[in-house]
Amino acid sequence: MEKGTVTWDMIRINKHTATPVKDEVAEEFPLTLIINGEEFATMVCSPTNLEELVIGYLAAEGVIRTGKDLLGFSVDEDTGFAYVETGRKIPDLAAQQKRWIGSCCGKSRAFYFQNDASTAKTVMGHFTIKPDQCTKLMDNFQEGARMFQRTGGVHQAALGTKDGIEVQFADIGRHNALDKLYGYTIKNRVRLKDKVIIFSGRISSEVLLKVSKMGIGCLLSKSAPTDLALQLADDLNITAVGFVRGDRMNVYTHPERIDLHSFNTSE
Amino acid sequence: MEKGTVTWDMIRINKHTATPVKDEVAEEFPLTLIINGEEFATMVCSPTNLEELVIGYLAAEGVIRTGKDLLGFSVDEDTGFAYVETGRKIPDLAAQQKRWIGSCCGKSRAFYFQNDASTAKTVMGHFTIKPDQCTKLMDNFQEGARMFQRTGGVHQAALGTKDGIEVQFADIGRHNALDKLYGYTIKNRVRLKDKVIIFSGRISSEVLLKVSKMGIGCLLSKSAPTDLALQLADDLNITAVGFVRGDRMNVYTHPERIDLHSFNTSE
Repeated sequence: MEKGTVTWDMIRINKHTATPVKDEVAEEFPLTLIINGEEFATMVCSPTNLEELVIGYLAAEGVIRTGKDLLGFSVDEDTGFAYVETGRKIPDLAAQQKRWIGSCCGKSRAFYFQNDASTAKTVMGHFTIKPDQCTKLMDNFQEGARMFQRTGGVHQAALGTKDGIEVQFADIGRHNALDKLYGYTIKNRVRLKDKVIIFSGRISSEVLLKVSKMGIGCLLSKSAPTDLALQLADDLNITAVGFVRGDRMNVYTHPERIDLHSFNTSE
Repeated sequence: MEKGTVTWDMIRINKHTATPVKDEVAEEFPLTLIINGEEFATMVCSPTNLEELVIGYLAAEGVIRTGKDLLGFSVDEDTGFAYVETGRKIPDLAAQQKRWIGSCCGKSRAFYFQNDASTAKTVMGHFTIKPDQCTKLMDNFQEGARMFQRTGGVHQAALGTKDGIEVQFADIGRHNALDKLYGYTIKNRVRLKDKVIIFSGRISSEVLLKVSKMGIGCLLSKSAPTDLALQLADDLNITAVGFVRGDRMNVYTHPERIDLHSFNTSE
C-alpha cells in the first residue's frame, strides 16, 4: 500500500449483492505548524511531500519569500507537528484575513484579503504554447493522476513546460496540492518563465491568486472557472484555460499566450 | 441568465478551430460577516440563499445554536456585507482553530479543532433506508444538479428522506452548499431524524463534522471518503456511503441503517 492511503473494511453493494471488502481510502493527516515556537495554523493534508507543503504554504501566506527565509525545519510525523524557524516577522493571520477594500490605479482589483493584495504578482512572461501541447499536457497529467489516485479522493497539481510535465503532486486538499508545487519551485529555485500549471480542480479566485503568487503565467484545468478568478487572471496577466478535455478547451483570459498559428479562426 | 452566473467572452478551441464565444461562468461573491458591529469573517460564495448560508455558517462555527439566537439579520448585496445581531457571546475564531489534543472516555476522537470538539454531536436516530432508495435519491440529486449546473463550477448538497429530495442548494464552495442546508434546517426547524444528506463532493473530515453538527445520521456521496472522515463517522454514529453510482455504492460505516433485507450477502 502506498503512502497516503489506508485500508478500511466496508460493504460493497452491487445490484442485489452486498459484499464485505477491504477498500483503500485516502489518508487525511492534520499537520500543525509551529513557527518560532508559536502555534500558527493547522492544515489537513495527505502525508506526502510535507516539506514542499509547508514551504509553499508559508510563501502563499506571505510568511517567507524565498528558501533563505527558512532557518530551520523539521516534521514529527507521529504527532503531526511541523516546526519552522524564520528570522522574518510573523504576520497576524487574523488581520490578514480582514476584508481588503481597495481602489487604486483606477482599476478595482478583485482581492478580498489583505494578504493577497500584498503578495499577488502581475506575471511578466511572454512564452506561448500550442493547443495540442495543452492537450498532451492534460493527457499526461491524467495518466499521472491515475497512478496515484486509486482511492479517488485526491486533487492533483503539476508543473510543466510545453514539452511535458516536470513534477506532479497529489493531496486531499486542492490548495495543498498547489502549495506543494509552490514549495517545490522555491526549494529547487525553479525557473518560472516557461512554465505552465496543470490542475485537477476548478479555477477559483483562491487558486488563481496562488498561481499569481508563484509567478506563473498559464493555468490549465479540466474544470470550470469562476468569474472572480477570471477578473483576477485578466488583471494579473495570467492565461486561464478551462475545460481542457481531449482537443477541446476554453481560453478565458490572455489568449495571446495560446499559439493559434495555422488555426481556423471563425467569428 | 440565472442568479449566480455571469457571461464571459472567451475563445473556444475545438480541434483546429478557434471561435470567440460568450460563456456562462459561476459567479464568486465575497461576503463579509459583521457580527454586533465587528468584522467576523469573509467567505466567498455563490450569491444565492445568503440568509441560509449565514445562519448555517454561524451554527457550524458555534456562534448560534438555534434561530432564536439571531436577533437581527440583513444583507447588503451591493457591497457584499451581511450584518448579524446576536445576544450570544462571540467565540474567538483564532482560539477555536487551535489544535485540539484530546483523549477522553478511552476513545481518541479524531477532532483537530477545539470548536469541533464542542459542537459535533453523536447522532441518535435509528431509521433505515434501502440501497435502491439511495440510488433513486442520487439520480434525482444529479438531475437537480444539471438544472443549475450549466456553468460546471458548483457543488451541491441536498436534504432528503427515503422517499425523495426535499431541498437542494448549490454553491461554488462545497462547505457553503452544506452551510446553506444547515441554515435551512435551522430556519425551518426541520425534523432531522428521518433525513439523509446527498452531497456532490468528497467526504472529508470537515464535511463529516458538519453533518454531525446538523444532527443527521446518513450521508450519501458520489465521491470518495478520507480515512479521518470515516473514523469520525464511525465514532459519531453516522452512516457514510460513498461512490453512489447507479446501483453500486460503498457502505463505509454503520451499515445497520442500510436495509439489506432480501439481499444476497456474500462473504
